[in-house]
Amino acid sequence: MDIDETTRVNLLYNFYHSLLTTKQSRYMDLYYVEDFSLSEIAEQLQVSRQAVLDNLHRSVNLLESFEKELGLIDKTQEIDDISEKLDHLVQTKYADDKELLDLVQRISKINEM
Amino acid sequence: MDIDETTRVNLLYNFYHSLLTTKQSRYMDLYYVEDFSLSEIAEQLQVSRQAVLDNLHRSVNLLESFEKELGLIDKTQEIDDISEKLDHLVQTKYADDKELLDLVQRISKINEM
Repeated sequence: MDIDETTRVNLLYNFYHSLLTTKQSRYMDLYYVEDFSLSEIAEQLQVSRQAVLDNLHRSVNLLESFEKELGLIDKTQEIDDISEKLDHLVQTKYADDKELLDLVQRISKINEM
Repeated sequence: MDIDETTRVNLLYNFYHSLLTTKQSRYMDLYYVEDFSLSEIAEQLQVSRQAVLDNLHRSVNLLESFEKELGLIDKTQEIDDISEKLDHLVQTKYADDKELLDLVQRISKINEM
């Protein structure tokens, strides 16, 4: 698994982990968060290495299907990008407009909701 | 079920229906979209009226748990509210600032992503 794929899965897991079952989360946690190897997880959970791999593949596919349906990663990145550009523009040109500043401030907090 | 609860469930269903199973979606569709009665659905699917009710309750609870975890309804409403206020402010005071207008336009499209 290359760096880009790991980053992608971490991002997906960060957004949608709450939609996985306890069992699915456990495998994902051990591999992607705790960084154990497939063999170490297999030994720890007393299953085959292939079972660990199958379980992880199913969970990653599930996470990708959540993103396909809900698109939270794309939306979050779009909000971050707009927020940054608006903040710069407003601070530069309209820093005395409190109403505008308040709205820009609210945009910067959407992704924390 | 009162109007407010129906509106709430419709909103939840609109956001998260893709996360339900085919069976769960079928019951929800018949009751909340097609507007059949519990007895009519029971007859159509050859199950008891209570089974229909239990199924619907479980699905509604599941939809509420998705909203609790992901908060898409709140976020969408916040984006709509900010977008409307920003649009009004910018059209009134800064209608000649193309860069600002473009960013405000992008905000208005986030919820369609």
